[in-house]
Amino acid sequence: MPQPTIAPRKPTQSPTLDSPLRGMTLKHVVESQQFTVPLLMELFERSRGMERVVARGGSLDYQNRIMTTLFYAPSTRTRLSFEAAMHRLGGRVLSTENAGAFSSEVEGEQLEDSIRIIGSYSDVIVVRHPEDCGARRAADVSPVPVINAGDGNGGQHPTQALLDLYTIYRQRPLDGLSVAIIGELDKGRTARSLAYLLAKFERVKMFFVSPPHLQMKADILSYLDEHGVRYELESDIDRVIGEVDVVYQTRIRPERVRDGKDLRSYAIDSTVLRRMKEDALILHPLPRTVELDKSVDADPRAMYFRQARNGLYVRMALLTMLLEQEQSAGNAWRLDTR
Amino acid sequence: MPQPTIAPRKPTQSPTLDSPLRGMTLKHVVESQQFTVPLLMELFERSRGMERVVARGGSLDYQNRIMTTLFYAPSTRTRLSFEAAMHRLGGRVLSTENAGAFSSEVEGEQLEDSIRIIGSYSDVIVVRHPEDCGARRAADVSPVPVINAGDGNGGQHPTQALLDLYTIYRQRPLDGLSVAIIGELDKGRTARSLAYLLAKFERVKMFFVSPPHLQMKADILSYLDEHGVRYELESDIDRVIGEVDVVYQTRIRPERVRDGKDLRSYAIDSTVLRRMKEDALILHPLPRTVELDKSVDADPRAMYFRQARNGLYVRMALLTMLLEQEQSAGNAWRLDTR
Amino acid sequence: MPQPTIAPRKPTQSPTLDSPLRGMTLKHVVESQQFTVPLLMELFERSRGMERVVARGGSLDYQNRIMTTLFYAPSTRTRLSFEAAMHRLGGRVLSTENAGAFSSEVEGEQLEDSIRIIGSYSDVIVVRHPEDCGARRAADVSPVPVINAGDGNGGQHPTQALLDLYTIYRQRPLDGLSVAIIGELDKGRTARSLAYLLAKFERVKMFFVSPPHLQMKADILSYLDEHGVRYELESDIDRVIGEVDVVYQTRIRPERVRDGKDLRSYAIDSTVLRRMKEDALILHPLPRTVELDKSVDADPRAMYFRQARNGLYVRMALLTMLLEQEQSAGNAWRLDTR
Repeated sequence: MPQPTIAPRKPTQSPTLDSPLRGMTLKHVVESQQFTVPLLMELFERSRGMERVVARGGSLDYQNRIMTTLFYAPSTRTRLSFEAAMHRLGGRVLSTENAGAFSSEVEGEQLEDSIRIIGSYSDVIVVRHPEDCGARRAADVSPVPVINAGDGNGGQHPTQALLDLYTIYRQRPLDGLSVAIIGELDKGRTARSLAYLLAKFERVKMFFVSPPHLQMKADILSYLDEHGVRYELESDIDRVIGEVDVVYQTRIRPERVRDGKDLRSYAIDSTVLRRMKEDALILHPLPRTVELDKSVDADPRAMYFRQARNGLYVRMALLTMLLEQEQSAGNAWRLDTR
Repeated sequence: MPQPTIAPRKPTQSPTLDSPLRGMTLKHVVESQQFTVPLLMELFERSRGMERVVARGGSLDYQNRIMTTLFYAPSTRTRLSFEAAMHRLGGRVLSTENAGAFSSEVEGEQLEDSIRIIGSYSDVIVVRHPEDCGARRAADVSPVPVINAGDGNGGQHPTQALLDLYTIYRQRPLDGLSVAIIGELDKGRTARSLAYLLAKFERVKMFFVSPPHLQMKADILSYLDEHGVRYELESDIDRVIGEVDVVYQTRIRPERVRDGKDLRSYAIDSTVLRRMKEDALILHPLPRTVELDKSVDADPRAMYFRQARNGLYVRMALLTMLLEQEQSAGNAWRLDTR
Repeated sequence: MPQPTIAPRKPTQSPTLDSPLRGMTLKHVVESQQFTVPLLMELFERSRGMERVVARGGSLDYQNRIMTTLFYAPSTRTRLSFEAAMHRLGGRVLSTENAGAFSSEVEGEQLEDSIRIIGSYSDVIVVRHPEDCGARRAADVSPVPVINAGDGNGGQHPTQALLDLYTIYRQRPLDGLSVAIIGELDKGRTARSLAYLLAKFERVKMFFVSPPHLQMKADILSYLDEHGVRYELESDIDRVIGEVDVVYQTRIRPERVRDGKDLRSYAIDSTVLRRMKEDALILHPLPRTVELDKSVDADPRAMYFRQARNGLYVRMALLTMLLEQEQSAGNAWRLDTR
């Protein structure tokens, strides 16, 4: 059953005043709701700067820092995006394409031991794990910062949500947005992580558009209720598509909908395009199947390839925040040479 | 059925005056016939320079450039050769050992989307794809240069042909050569790519030596006919081995020949060695099976380990040509920060 | 049947005066017994220096050197440890996560050809091979230094033994040690490699603790007899645990012991801890299963996470020794540009 990797925090006075998971600084990135609005704004300002760094060719400041991508389930695009980010900072990368298949861990070694060991020769670990609490378990024992690159089946994928939000931020003020989140929402890691983030902003309204049996789970809805965020559950794309500022489309696997007609009725194609606002934004975390027609690619409202590029900037920015933090902590483990 | 990835171009006045696929500059490397003789000569001069760069320890000029090796089918040696080339230039590498198995692409994502995404955080993409037009499809949508590292079953492997030709060039004038190309030629990507390249030079004669049912396909033969290049189809190695300047041996899989005797009659061993010209060159793209006996390794005419080393220099040279080109195009995508 | 990768050398006057495999310098690292005490001391002094290099952030001296990890059997932790070591030296890495599955070598290419080819674009090769003589075969043909990262089922894993010994060395004089080596010793690569190394030091005594059917094989015992090293075979952990200076625990796979009680009687847990010397050291090469309880982790005598970190320093030191050697040999292959 999909669950947040830690229990939802108690409601605070205002969603914009959430305190971060571990004080104002960022130690690990486990779930999207740990980001406060000030922290998001700092991240986005840095991401903006990274666009300029990349345009100039990159940086060399991090030439002595090592990032390890520890992927127990393969994801070529997410892994390469993190690795490109570290390289554009001038850093170094240790990489596992499929540690799940290629490690004695299959014979019973625990994630915790691997993280402790890899943490003794890396400065930051990016982990993708097939279990819902994988990233949390890693963060709990790691001597260096851990970034969740997707965990579980209904877990989180916080950096995807951060780059999604950054893509909107680059085009539009975030307060007052109306957003349609479409697809297979019960298992949608990216949709779930994004809903938590959008909830931080003022006067946001979300429409969750999905066949009823695939709707957003109660944990998210409770979170939104507790924080006073407006949302509607909708099964008909036509009733919302003309009024929203952002369409966040996600994958629908054919085997999870009851019939082909149903599948097609949640797809975006040139007909649906014509009914959208002229300045709407179309986002999709990719990869796609039939729910996003190729005819949409040339439309200026299509943001999904720009999202992929923004992922580079946001991950660069996030790495700098985590590594500066680690630096100021004095790299305690490294100096312990007793 | 094996086919060139694009239709053969119309015959030009002279094979040495072919115009390159896209003007005098090199945007993508998809098939060997796109190289003109002047372009080959520029590549080979640069490769010569790379021998000196490597002897001095390498270069650091490309420290801010990223090459991605996107291999949908594994090939350890080809992949590592490209990656070593980029490292010797001082550059950075993102790597996939087996993107075919380890990506949601198996669930239906299209190559085109992956290339667009990876092209947004790389400066050049080296792609190996199991389908005949894979590299062409990638080049058609990529925002950065694409290099074909082998596609399809009867497709091309142009950089192998370039390093093969460079190996000959370092030892012998290319005009006037007589070359025996031996093996399983109908499916031989490297033999096919090399035939296209040799056809660019004056007074070349090729002998295609193979059991009749595995002979070179009609597409290549038509190309040679159209360009006025001399060739003979031969099934008996003994009739040509004593008169050629270059023996280009390729793999013969036992399951594709009718009996063991047949297999052995196309092999090169110490007996065959004795009948070759004293200054002949023996090339093989490797890996080998029984068609190239280990007793040949110590013969000074054996060039196949030198070929592997030349692959490093040619790939370094090729990367510099593509990346300079991209540089002068202003990296449009990167500066688009709207 | 487990065997050393080369025949045991004849007994010399004293175990501390063994001559190295190929003169005083280090060309390849194939098996632990090739290290003399002076060579070990040089390695350990350098490793000590590497602790300081890492504390300062790393070195850039090796920015033009390439190390290839050629793993025919996957081992994420060992591979990443070597790669981190090369990166901390400022060097570059070519990596294969599972060359066995992802190479045409499965179709019959020989290890020797791959080593020759990869040696033409790398400065050092780290090889893990499933056959007992894999590393020796690689070293025999390689144009550049080869390091054995584990070969065979009862072969060796010399760098693990080096880091094990370094971990003891950092805490204790090596002469006069008493060491219990516990576990599945007949197939234990790391236990075997460590026994060879400990035998180099004065007045060492080893207790091999194991169910009788999994005891240390005759090749090691003969080596110890020939070199006059004291050891005892023991099946009861209780009879030795209170008197040894070092407990070297290794994995016991449940399927190899006769019943669960047997398995548990070789495990280290809080009960066993209480009977150990107050200043004993507990080592384990990891990964672990039930033979090392998590309750031991917090005990100050537990050295196994420190071992992992020491692996980084020892591998950095070893790489510098091999690469300096190669440098002074003039990189002959690279300058041969005929």
